[in-house]
Amino acid sequence: MSQIKGKQSTEFERDVYILGAASIVGQKEGEGPLGENFDKIEQDPMFGQKSWEEAESEMQIKAAKLVLEKCGRKAEDIRMIFAGDLLAQSIASCFGLVDLNRPLYGLYGACSTIGEALSLGAMAVAGGYANYVLSMTSSHFASVEKEFRFPLAYGNQRPPSSSWTVTGSGACIVSSEKSNVKISGITSGKIVDYGLKDSQNMGGCMAPAAADTIAQNLADFERKPEDYDRIITGDLGSIGKEILLELMKKKGYDIAGNYLDCGMLIFDPNTQDTNAGGSGCGCAATVLASTLLPKLESGEWKRILFVPTGALMSKVSFYEGKSVPGIAQGVILEHAGKE
Amino acid sequence: MSQIKGKQSTEFERDVYILGAASIVGQKEGEGPLGENFDKIEQDPMFGQKSWEEAESEMQIKAAKLVLEKCGRKAEDIRMIFAGDLLAQSIASCFGLVDLNRPLYGLYGACSTIGEALSLGAMAVAGGYANYVLSMTSSHFASVEKEFRFPLAYGNQRPPSSSWTVTGSGACIVSSEKSNVKISGITSGKIVDYGLKDSQNMGGCMAPAAADTIAQNLADFERKPEDYDRIITGDLGSIGKEILLELMKKKGYDIAGNYLDCGMLIFDPNTQDTNAGGSGCGCAATVLASTLLPKLESGEWKRILFVPTGALMSKVSFYEGKSVPGIAQGVILEHAGKE
Repeated sequence: MSQIKGKQSTEFERDVYILGAASIVGQKEGEGPLGENFDKIEQDPMFGQKSWEEAESEMQIKAAKLVLEKCGRKAEDIRMIFAGDLLAQSIASCFGLVDLNRPLYGLYGACSTIGEALSLGAMAVAGGYANYVLSMTSSHFASVEKEFRFPLAYGNQRPPSSSWTVTGSGACIVSSEKSNVKISGITSGKIVDYGLKDSQNMGGCMAPAAADTIAQNLADFERKPEDYDRIITGDLGSIGKEILLELMKKKGYDIAGNYLDCGMLIFDPNTQDTNAGGSGCGCAATVLASTLLPKLESGEWKRILFVPTGALMSKVSFYEGKSVPGIAQGVILEHAGKE
Repeated sequence: MSQIKGKQSTEFERDVYILGAASIVGQKEGEGPLGENFDKIEQDPMFGQKSWEEAESEMQIKAAKLVLEKCGRKAEDIRMIFAGDLLAQSIASCFGLVDLNRPLYGLYGACSTIGEALSLGAMAVAGGYANYVLSMTSSHFASVEKEFRFPLAYGNQRPPSSSWTVTGSGACIVSSEKSNVKISGITSGKIVDYGLKDSQNMGGCMAPAAADTIAQNLADFERKPEDYDRIITGDLGSIGKEILLELMKKKGYDIAGNYLDCGMLIFDPNTQDTNAGGSGCGCAATVLASTLLPKLESGEWKRILFVPTGALMSKVSFYEGKSVPGIAQGVILEHAGKE
């Protein structure tokens, strides 16, 4: 039994499905172009809690409970959780998910975490170790500003290349139970460091990693960009997009025709002052759950390459003058329903 | 194909081995009771670098290269890395492993991370997604003091229940290639929160999680404690040990006769001033690589339950008055050589 495909990819022999997904976002995301797609828009940025961190944890447990409810499943059905977030020591996930009382594998892949959670979740189900796993992430604008930048009250200045952290949590149940969306393969991403040090241009920092993973996926599966209805990155934003398209051209691929970026879909930069676009673990996760999966479920899209992207850095690495390497995890999602 | 065992465990149908392991530690660990077991003892706490974080990264890449060398393998043979550390946003791993140029799944399980890395690595190999994966972690006394407590120069006071973070990195190659040590199964750990808030008593905070995972393992595999030559936790230390033994008694198990703790093995508290024992991601990982695996390789031990333990907290969660939940990941290791 080998499901090894090319240099960095896996093609699952046993079918793995996304049984269902849920998305919970904040007010600003609700006012954006995808507003009506989200399951729940929470107007209170504190989510009824006393700190930003507790707010993010509350958002996670709400998303987890909602996806269970939508799929008609109980917490006990979930054999493993794969989850992570952007906060130091992943406290949003640790404190958010403790009450589910299910086994947890904590992840850190920066904003690529939902790609990592889906990849490992699919491995667990395809391997026969679980019938239902929960793959989820979150980010919260205010907890992330506190973690990486300045207290909100300081009124942080934002260059045009900066992104706006999405307040949102997206959760998927990955299962052996059939649904209309299949995870047919993955491409495991490498850390790619072009030496960029501008943490206010994360799209630029992550674009080389996205190009690396996408090109590797096409090579490993011997596919052309057109073999995917869409190739969709996590949160490169408008600056990162241009760099990605250019890098892909240099690798011999023109993906401009079927390329999308979750960070560019979730906000309207003209009216929402979000500069390059949305970012954060919650960006790709909520756009997937709310907007991408329904198009695969309906069959409007037959196959997409979903590539959440992460910028690897911390306050400390930034202050110590380190670069911001990127990582991107590729997940192939296919329509699995009857034609 | 189902390898699901009981409520939280997996029994691998396909054989998965630990092909080899490497350990690199600092001076203090080298002076401890296990000193002569480690592959390399580095006298320079900076590992030739300019910051504590860079020192930890350097230690990781050295451990990774050493295990490759010991196993006669090249970086290109490694299909996936499963790694993490204690620093915010896992920067020790991100910056340490970038030069290996291999696909990475970043993990966060606090000091249980080597258990998580071995569990997911075994899943990847047993599932047929990889023939060789690298499972590794690190911690560094000084980077961790900076991350969680005070600058070293402040001369932090330590209560008797506190532990001493191990400076060390342990790396294992998990493979489908046969060796004398097999990973036969895992028990996926839940977050367990007894509400303790004393981050200077992490053993006490983690003991309930260890008890939960050990008892679940025994139930899932229908085993008695004596079915394991040893049951070995990660870093409960002397206080956590007493609580664990008591909790296990309440669950109906007496494990006192075959119980060990990596944190109690690595330092001599009488001469090394390490209070309750060693801790940190590097503790269980280096003790495994240096001391536990050789006993399995030789057949002195036939089967052990290795249970790295993690305390889930951050500076922020501590300052906000949150408790310190624990998590423990169980890995069953067996002698696989000829009798």
